[in-house]
Amino acid sequence: MQEVRLVFLGFGNVGKALAKLLLKKESELKDKFQLGFKVTGIATGRHGQAVNPDGIDLAFALETDDYSKLGRIAVGDARDFIAKAQGDVLFENSPVNYETGQPAVDHLRWALEHGMHAITANKGPVVHAYRELSGIARQAGRRFLFESTVMDGAPIFSLFRGALPGANLISFKGVLNSTTNMILTRMEDGACFESAVRYCQEIGIAETDPSGDIDGWDAAVKVSALATVLMETPLKPSQVDRTGIREISLESVQQAKAQGKRWKLVCSLEKDGARVHARVHPELVGTDSPLYGATGTTSIVQFQTDVLGLLSVVEADPGPHTTAYGLFADFLTAMGKTS
Amino acid sequence: MQEVRLVFLGFGNVGKALAKLLLKKESELKDKFQLGFKVTGIATGRHGQAVNPDGIDLAFALETDDYSKLGRIAVGDARDFIAKAQGDVLFENSPVNYETGQPAVDHLRWALEHGMHAITANKGPVVHAYRELSGIARQAGRRFLFESTVMDGAPIFSLFRGALPGANLISFKGVLNSTTNMILTRMEDGACFESAVRYCQEIGIAETDPSGDIDGWDAAVKVSALATVLMETPLKPSQVDRTGIREISLESVQQAKAQGKRWKLVCSLEKDGARVHARVHPELVGTDSPLYGATGTTSIVQFQTDVLGLLSVVEADPGPHTTAYGLFADFLTAMGKTS
Repeated sequence: MQEVRLVFLGFGNVGKALAKLLLKKESELKDKFQLGFKVTGIATGRHGQAVNPDGIDLAFALETDDYSKLGRIAVGDARDFIAKAQGDVLFENSPVNYETGQPAVDHLRWALEHGMHAITANKGPVVHAYRELSGIARQAGRRFLFESTVMDGAPIFSLFRGALPGANLISFKGVLNSTTNMILTRMEDGACFESAVRYCQEIGIAETDPSGDIDGWDAAVKVSALATVLMETPLKPSQVDRTGIREISLESVQQAKAQGKRWKLVCSLEKDGARVHARVHPELVGTDSPLYGATGTTSIVQFQTDVLGLLSVVEADPGPHTTAYGLFADFLTAMGKTS
Repeated sequence: MQEVRLVFLGFGNVGKALAKLLLKKESELKDKFQLGFKVTGIATGRHGQAVNPDGIDLAFALETDDYSKLGRIAVGDARDFIAKAQGDVLFENSPVNYETGQPAVDHLRWALEHGMHAITANKGPVVHAYRELSGIARQAGRRFLFESTVMDGAPIFSLFRGALPGANLISFKGVLNSTTNMILTRMEDGACFESAVRYCQEIGIAETDPSGDIDGWDAAVKVSALATVLMETPLKPSQVDRTGIREISLESVQQAKAQGKRWKLVCSLEKDGARVHARVHPELVGTDSPLYGATGTTSIVQFQTDVLGLLSVVEADPGPHTTAYGLFADFLTAMGKTS
């Protein structure tokens, strides 16, 4: 039985969902994978941080806001926290920064430098520091993993790493932003744009300022991450040819519906020699397209490779628990528990 | 650079497609995976067999029917062939036997006993000897792999092995038989049942006696394989509650079409404690179901696990080359080239 020391940097919805999943799977991890774990550090934005080499009571951590009761060792900033938590695995879940990827990039680098596996659900570091962090991880014999950054827990990066060995991605098409997809679905059901946005805010999938989703930035960041990792072609979100859904009127949605079609905010990537064409644009799709069936918060990717016909992956009902599963899957991958 | 000795038992459409894929990927295997290969044995049903420890000229083997020109060593039966070919990997592609899985089960066992990895596209051994062959493989430190048996090269078994670690399959639904799906699609376009069957025979996806597909046996075997491997519950095709598509009239297909629905031969599996409910039945599906969009030869699976929302995998345009890719992916997996 191996005992792994886990460290949480960020303990919001996703971090807490991961903690719950780990507790739920605790005995299964022992029985199936001979893996035990203890949590030696939890850092939050709001409630401070706790470090305890003997292991923090995770169930209690899910309930309390008083981190002084959880920790045993005093720590300073994030760098000091990572050093003193002395973990084997860092789960990095700080807020995303589309422009620079910071401070997540630093957190992950420090973790790798301390001999930890670095796992994140944060898209920023993938887009801004994939090569750097992968390089450090390789040299340290550790892993930098980020399955949850695109379509949360659904296997995308692990698909190409493990399930499609020797396959080369030629092109990609998909619906990757749940918020805009839900807005369009609500408009099909007759809601106006503003009321559809409000609905998404109410169910917790849109921010107070929803422009990151609506203007296609979130989709563009995901497209950049896919190009950077799966096509080995670094691409910044600003290099993506991007149009959001602001110009799609209720009338146009209803007109499409009458013709048996649907508007989708379609992400696409195409490899053309050393160059990559990346695009986020609204498209009309018909019932003959697998994209048609992806409504509400459902996401879909379609991969064209050099070895198979069109291969699609569809994920329904995402949430913090499915993002948490992506982190959990990365954890098992880092521990060598895949085959 | 590692040089791997490959042996082909069965060299029909799929075996030949695999040989072509290996030749196409030869330099990529060297560059990316530090893997070289030579083919030390090819056995066919019609043209005899060839064994050559120095390596058979694979490009020439794809063109000639004169196997005396390929081999260097005389061999007797299949067992003798496997022994003398002295390979590291056996690609078993003999014709499927739904009742017993033989002779493929013997071929794979002999290969494992000779220290080879055993890879097959043949469903018979998975349904009839999964535990036995997996056990022998484990003891020998080798792999028994069969990705191509369900949805050919699309990742299904590898998904749970590698990309969804720690996930438990609760239930499954899908369209797994291309022939019946194509027949139903042709009937939607107005063809009668008999003419739709003839079309499938013409394009090479239905046998002269198409009853294995039409009566749901092929689908039932695939469902059994999924239950046996992914739910660790051995299940024989005869235990699947099975109805084929013979009773679906052209009128009923057209009536469904008028209502915006489609008939699909739906496979399903549900885990209920230690028991598994397995079913192959025609079902009417609407545009709200991801199954609706899977027309013609497209296959789809939908997985309900304990960690994600509904996860679907859709594969379009299957053929011998995609089955060959499944074998190729298994080869890389056996060589430890996944991560």
